[in-house]
Amino acid sequence: MTAIPDRLLLGPGPCNVSAPVREAMAAPLLGHLDPDFLAIVEHVKASLRTLFGTSNAVTFPVSGTGSAGMEACLVNVIEPGDSVLVVVQGVFGLRLANLAERYGATVHRLEIPWGTALDAAALAAAAKQARPRLICAVNGETSTGVYQRFDGFAEVAREHNALLLADCVTSLAGMPVAIDDWGVDLVYSGTQKCLACPPGLAPVSFSQRALDRVAARRNPVPSFYLDVGEVMKYLDGSSGARAYHHTAPISMIYALDAALAEIEAEGLSARYARHAAAAQALIAGLGTLGLEPLVAEADRLHPLTTVKLPPGIDEAAIRSALLTQHGIEIGAGLGPLAGQVWRIGLMGGNACQHSVDTLIAALRPLL
Amino acid sequence: MTAIPDRLLLGPGPCNVSAPVREAMAAPLLGHLDPDFLAIVEHVKASLRTLFGTSNAVTFPVSGTGSAGMEACLVNVIEPGDSVLVVVQGVFGLRLANLAERYGATVHRLEIPWGTALDAAALAAAAKQARPRLICAVNGETSTGVYQRFDGFAEVAREHNALLLADCVTSLAGMPVAIDDWGVDLVYSGTQKCLACPPGLAPVSFSQRALDRVAARRNPVPSFYLDVGEVMKYLDGSSGARAYHHTAPISMIYALDAALAEIEAEGLSARYARHAAAAQALIAGLGTLGLEPLVAEADRLHPLTTVKLPPGIDEAAIRSALLTQHGIEIGAGLGPLAGQVWRIGLMGGNACQHSVDTLIAALRPLL
Repeated sequence: MTAIPDRLLLGPGPCNVSAPVREAMAAPLLGHLDPDFLAIVEHVKASLRTLFGTSNAVTFPVSGTGSAGMEACLVNVIEPGDSVLVVVQGVFGLRLANLAERYGATVHRLEIPWGTALDAAALAAAAKQARPRLICAVNGETSTGVYQRFDGFAEVAREHNALLLADCVTSLAGMPVAIDDWGVDLVYSGTQKCLACPPGLAPVSFSQRALDRVAARRNPVPSFYLDVGEVMKYLDGSSGARAYHHTAPISMIYALDAALAEIEAEGLSARYARHAAAAQALIAGLGTLGLEPLVAEADRLHPLTTVKLPPGIDEAAIRSALLTQHGIEIGAGLGPLAGQVWRIGLMGGNACQHSVDTLIAALRPLL
Repeated sequence: MTAIPDRLLLGPGPCNVSAPVREAMAAPLLGHLDPDFLAIVEHVKASLRTLFGTSNAVTFPVSGTGSAGMEACLVNVIEPGDSVLVVVQGVFGLRLANLAERYGATVHRLEIPWGTALDAAALAAAAKQARPRLICAVNGETSTGVYQRFDGFAEVAREHNALLLADCVTSLAGMPVAIDDWGVDLVYSGTQKCLACPPGLAPVSFSQRALDRVAARRNPVPSFYLDVGEVMKYLDGSSGARAYHHTAPISMIYALDAALAEIEAEGLSARYARHAAAAQALIAGLGTLGLEPLVAEADRLHPLTTVKLPPGIDEAAIRSALLTQHGIEIGAGLGPLAGQVWRIGLMGGNACQHSVDTLIAALRPLL
C-alpha cells in the first residue's frame, strides 16, 4: 500500500474526514442482505430525510458519487422530447443541461452570469417560454460559490405541472436545505462535501410527484443501475421482501452512517452556524491579503468561497506551492472563472478558524 | 456507529476482506487531482491490466458496483436499433439483455439451460440469425456457478464485425481471465468477489475496437457518469492534462490498491490453484452430507459452487440458522433455481480448507 501524505483539504471536496468515520470503513464486511446491514441502511435513510428536510419515503444513497446522483434524478423522469428548463449559472448547471440532452430532452438554458443568483420572476418568465416538464437549478453551485435560494420556484414549477430539481451537493449539511418546504421533487448530493464522509455515495430523494412521473413513463428508464423502481426493490424494506438489485457498497455505507451520527450529535443549526462563521472568517482573512470574494454577501455559499485573483499572478504555481510546501489543497477556477478565482472549501470539520488561519498564514508569503 | 457482528461470508459476495485492505480505507483522504492520489490510480490501472490479461490502455475501475460496470460497457457501444446477441444462461445474461433493450437494442437471446455452458458452434449458429453488432456472454455466472469458456467466440464475433463482451465479475482473480487472448473487447468485474475488496468499484477494460465503435457513434452516449470518453479525460494521465469529471471514491481506490498488492504478492496461478482446491474440498465436504453440485465438473466456476438441495427441506430456515447461530452467510438460488440450490462462495481469502470445514460442520446438524 502506497504511503498517504497528510493534507489539509480546502478545495471543492473531498474535505478531511474524521478518524471515526474513516475507521468505520475498517469494520468487517456484512452481506448486502444481512439483517444487521439492512438495519444500518434504514438508519441512514432516516437520517438523510432529516438532512434533506423531507418525509419522502424514497430517500437513499445512490451507489456512486455526486454525478451519479444527478444522473439518477434525471434519468428516471426525462423522456425523449420532454421540455427541460435548466438554470445555468456554473459548471453544474451546464452538466444538468448536458445530461438532459443525452436523455433526449429539449433543453432550455436560462443563463445568468457566473457568480450571481436568480429570482423567481426571471424563472417564471423563462418557464412561460419553455413550458417545461422539469425545472432544474443548483442550490449550491460548487463552481461559483453561489447559494441559490428556491423561494417561489415551486410556484413556477406547479404552474406548468413541472417537476422541480435541486442540486444540493455542496449545500447539504452545510447550509439550510428544506426540500419539502421548498417544494423540490428531486434532489441529490454527495458525501464528500459537508457530510464530511469520503466520496462514493450520492444521497437522493424523490417526491411522490416525481415517482408518479416515473410510473407514467412511456419507455423504460434507460438505466438499470439507477432505475429507482428497481433500486427500491432492494432498498424498500416496508413490504418485508427485499430483492437483490446490486451489491451495495457496504463499507461506504458504514462511513456514511458514522458521518450522519456526527452530524446528528452536532445538530443542524449549530453546523450551519459553524459553516457560516468559518466563511466569514475566511473572507476577513483574505481581506488582509487584499483579496475579495466574487459573490455578493447575500448569495454566498458558506462551504465554498470563490475569491478573485489579482491580475498578473501565476495562480497555478501558488496552488502547487501550497500543496507541496504546506500540504494544503485549494481549488482552481472552472470554465470562464479559470485563472480568475480560487475555490476555497471549508466543509465538515474543516469549517473552523484553525483552517482559515493555517491557509492565510501559508498564502501570505506566496502572494 | 452501529456494532458490526463477525460473519463468515460464503455467499455470492461480498466475501470477507483482510484487515490490511479494510484498514487501507482508514487512511487520510487525498484530493482526486492530488498527484499522490493519481499515482495510486495509475498503479491500480496497471495492476488491473495484469489481472484482465490485457494491454488495453483504457482499463480502470468504474466508480460504482459491478452492475455499474456492466452498464458502462453497454451504454458506450450500443445505439438504438443495434442487433445484440446475448447468451442467457442465468441472471446476469438476463440482466445484460434487459439493459441492452433499455438502450434501444434489438436483443436476440440465445437461451441455454441454467447450469450449463455453451460451445462456439451454437454461438455461430445464433449469430448467423442475429447478425449482431455486439455479442455478450457471462464468463463467471454467479447465479448458476458456471465458468463459460470463450474458445472460438472471438472468431464468431469477428465474422460479423461484432464486439465481444465478457462478464468476469466472479471469475476475475479466481480463475483464468485473459481477455486479449480471448479476443474480448469489453469486460467488467466487481471488487467484492475474488479481488477480496469491499464492493463499490467495477474494474472494466475497453479494446481499441470498442473505442473505435464509441468514436463512430451517431448519438451521444446516454450517460455522462459512464461516458468512457469523459471519464478518460480525468483518468488518462498520458497527455499530462487531467480534467475533473467526477470525484473519484478515494478510500475505495485505496482499498483496491491494497487488494491488488495482496493478489500480486500471491501470484495469479497460485491464486487460481487455491480457488480450485477450495472448490474441490467443498464439493467433497458436501458429498459427505449427501449433497451434489449442480454443474458438470468441466464447467464449474470455482469461486462459486451451486449445490442441489434435497427435496422437502426448508432451505430458507437453514440459511437463517447458519447466519444467526453460526454467523455464516451462504446464498439462495435465484430465478428458476430458487429453492433448488444454494450458492456457496469461496472467494479471496475464504477460498481455503478452513472455510469448508467450518461450513460443513455447521451444516451437518441442520440438514
